[in-house]
Amino acid sequence: MSGGSGRFIVFEGGEGSGKSTAASAVAARLAAEGRPVLLTREPGGTPVGEQIRALLHERLSPWAELFAFLAARAELVERIVRPALGRGEIVLCDRFAPSTFAYQVHARGLDAVIVRTANRAATGGLEPDLIVYLDLDPAAGLARKAGEGAAIATAHEGLAFHRKVREGYLLQARDDPARWAVIDASLPAERVATLAYERVLRALG
Amino acid sequence: MSGGSGRFIVFEGGEGSGKSTAASAVAARLAAEGRPVLLTREPGGTPVGEQIRALLHERLSPWAELFAFLAARAELVERIVRPALGRGEIVLCDRFAPSTFAYQVHARGLDAVIVRTANRAATGGLEPDLIVYLDLDPAAGLARKAGEGAAIATAHEGLAFHRKVREGYLLQARDDPARWAVIDASLPAERVATLAYERVLRALG
Repeated sequence: MSGGSGRFIVFEGGEGSGKSTAASAVAARLAAEGRPVLLTREPGGTPVGEQIRALLHERLSPWAELFAFLAARAELVERIVRPALGRGEIVLCDRFAPSTFAYQVHARGLDAVIVRTANRAATGGLEPDLIVYLDLDPAAGLARKAGEGAAIATAHEGLAFHRKVREGYLLQARDDPARWAVIDASLPAERVATLAYERVLRALG
Repeated sequence: MSGGSGRFIVFEGGEGSGKSTAASAVAARLAAEGRPVLLTREPGGTPVGEQIRALLHERLSPWAELFAFLAARAELVERIVRPALGRGEIVLCDRFAPSTFAYQVHARGLDAVIVRTANRAATGGLEPDLIVYLDLDPAAGLARKAGEGAAIATAHEGLAFHRKVREGYLLQARDDPARWAVIDASLPAERVATLAYERVLRALG
């Protein structure tokens, strides 16, 4: 599915869901077993992508935001993800296309068909083998985040927006249950990491 | 056509064609006549757009480059061009969508249908009222540019690439002669500016 001999695993979730923590915990466990793991994030993960990430702290118009994310994604796929998959590595990525469909399409209302077409161009058709989605009530997530500083492009959004984001994730999970692992992110971080790790192990088969 | 009471006029051309010089000369003449003129450029023209412009000096993967241009374009249209047109101003823009079709589609070979769809999303369907294309043999243009420093994203490209770009422009002009003014950019700069000014005046009708 990922088009290489490796595995492409994406961690998704709303603000404060703990996905970055879970992704690095899983990466550490896999690495400790001697498996080749590449941990990256989006937007970012490349010099250009990190510059775009910085730029996204400003409030962009909705389509500008979408295209900035896609520019970072195209760089990440071409320079980092595909080469690593080609070397047989396990790529763990903190956010990917599912974020776009949850935030930009479902919550912001951008046209799904146009976004899907453009996203496919940006990824060259690359799809994750597994999406680990850390599901959390947005009120709880935002409370966790409070004091951690601005979240990318959504710091100014209210609870209603984040509820739409969650709904956008859950709809994607419902439509593709074989590839989506929904994990209750209100559990303790250690437990979340273990559940995520177990699902990743299963995907590695 | 431009969706406002103003006029949207785009200057296009290959490297060294003198389009920036011509655009500012035309802007100066119009301003001297007391007309409301807004001169801008793409990529750039907004804080985010100028950051993207800086980022495009690096060599991006083809789709990353395309989406970075579209992010800058979406910002420019929403923040600068549409408001100015709404105020009845004459907007002169140094590069716009025709560059994308000449460089990214015709010369680099990106899929025209996908690019057209994405571009329409970025512009919200805004089309120039007039495209002033300064046509020049790329060998002459590159010779002019030599020593001026790197051109955006194309500094590493050879003459064959720039010949494709020119072909991409001329095909667009052939397909839409009512909106395209093709000017011989090998003429002296003053003469080019006058020819461009005359065509712009006609478009202002």
